[in-house]
Amino acid sequence: METLIQDASIEWSDLGGNIRRKIMAFNEEMMIVKVEMKSGAIGASHHHIHTQASYVSKGVFDITIDGTTQRLQAGDVYFVPSMVEHGALCIEDGELVDVFHPLRKDFL
Amino acid sequence: METLIQDASIEWSDLGGNIRRKIMAFNEEMMIVKVEMKSGAIGASHHHIHTQASYVSKGVFDITIDGTTQRLQAGDVYFVPSMVEHGALCIEDGELVDVFHPLRKDFL
Repeated sequence: METLIQDASIEWSDLGGNIRRKIMAFNEEMMIVKVEMKSGAIGASHHHIHTQASYVSKGVFDITIDGTTQRLQAGDVYFVPSMVEHGALCIEDGELVDVFHPLRKDFL
Repeated sequence: METLIQDASIEWSDLGGNIRRKIMAFNEEMMIVKVEMKSGAIGASHHHIHTQASYVSKGVFDITIDGTTQRLQAGDVYFVPSMVEHGALCIEDGELVDVFHPLRKDFL
């Protein structure tokens, strides 16, 4: 497994809906992923067993967790406990760095 | 626990050695932390049971994991499996976003 990962070394995967994803690194315990979203793109509300810690690396998003929505911008953070409903609406072109525990096998 | 966290809402803690830390969010499963380092600051080599996924949010660092060093810059990532030795040397004033599994109780 790579442990020192330059951003330019990994290609984006187009998910449609003006969303792209890069899987940066993972093992069975954790996975770190970049998600690029264009203004207006929607990360539909969903939940999963994985705990998620996310960093807003670029842009502006309205993030909803468990029914509460807040506008977050580059530098802000959100945290999603296991099985808690969450979603994202991109307000200005941006990027999220999502970290999951355990591994999101569904992304592989 | 806060789940939607604006960066400005949390104060830095000075750790000395030109390093500051902000604990952004956590539960028993994960913790997300910002670390600010000035050029020349050293995160001494160490290891811990926690798996760690880190995002370079600002600046330039020489990151060493298990004896291999690579220069990483804003946008790059590194990943540290449990008990693997790692350290950081800040080359240009910067910031890391460190995510751990499980909770780093030693930070509280």
